[in-house]
Amino acid sequence: MERVPILKIGDILLVSIQVDMSDQTAVQLQEDLAERIVATGCHGVIIDITALDIVDSFVGRMLSTIASISKVLDAETVVVGMRPAVAITLVELGLSLNGIRTALNVERGMELIAASRADDGDVTLGDDEDADATATP
Amino acid sequence: MERVPILKIGDILLVSIQVDMSDQTAVQLQEDLAERIVATGCHGVIIDITALDIVDSFVGRMLSTIASISKVLDAETVVVGMRPAVAITLVELGLSLNGIRTALNVERGMELIAASRADDGDVTLGDDEDADATATP
Repeated sequence: MERVPILKIGDILLVSIQVDMSDQTAVQLQEDLAERIVATGCHGVIIDITALDIVDSFVGRMLSTIASISKVLDAETVVVGMRPAVAITLVELGLSLNGIRTALNVERGMELIAASRADDGDVTLGDDEDADATATP
Repeated sequence: MERVPILKIGDILLVSIQVDMSDQTAVQLQEDLAERIVATGCHGVIIDITALDIVDSFVGRMLSTIASISKVLDAETVVVGMRPAVAITLVELGLSLNGIRTALNVERGMELIAASRADDGDVTLGDDEDADATATP
């Protein structure tokens, strides 16, 4: 079974999807990612889909699931590298990537995550009530 | 034809090899990488082979070729994420990865490239003769 590698770069986990995702591969990736987020304490997940010619409902759902899992584990998910044709097809198919943030490339994805963490940091420092609401397990 | 995506992170190009490399894919990757190095002016190339179960002589040669091309274009190549089993097989097969530097993971690869660039910088500033010796084509 193919296993999608997860690379850790600073505070971010980077996943580059290049193979066709089967049910098994998708579930494995979700499990691996969840484990790595917990093990590393990373606060951001970047999923690169440059290599994908098509994003169908299965892949779309997988991305949404990963984003949801990451969110529960206090990590932000950004999908990067979407091809123009993929974006057009997504809209034509009426698929909305629920709860998924996108960026043009890995660097902008990293900036997005850093900015979003900085915002959260401000809240934690300035407003204890909000911070408690999000921080308590 | 599969195309291996090249991700730019800061001053580094990151390639995660996950698919079986055919002749065509390998040549395409070499061309793409050379173009990206020139276009971006990046000084480091990190090739992640976490996903590879085996590195045969073909892949070994491809990595060496990429390292040589990058070197000519003033970029350092580091191969990261080699599995223990792959390392053992490489040695057993008597394959030496000529001219290739390795690191345990992407982060250490980045440190290696940064350190090596810093060294180059020092030499250029401190000792013109050495710098000329390495810098002249």
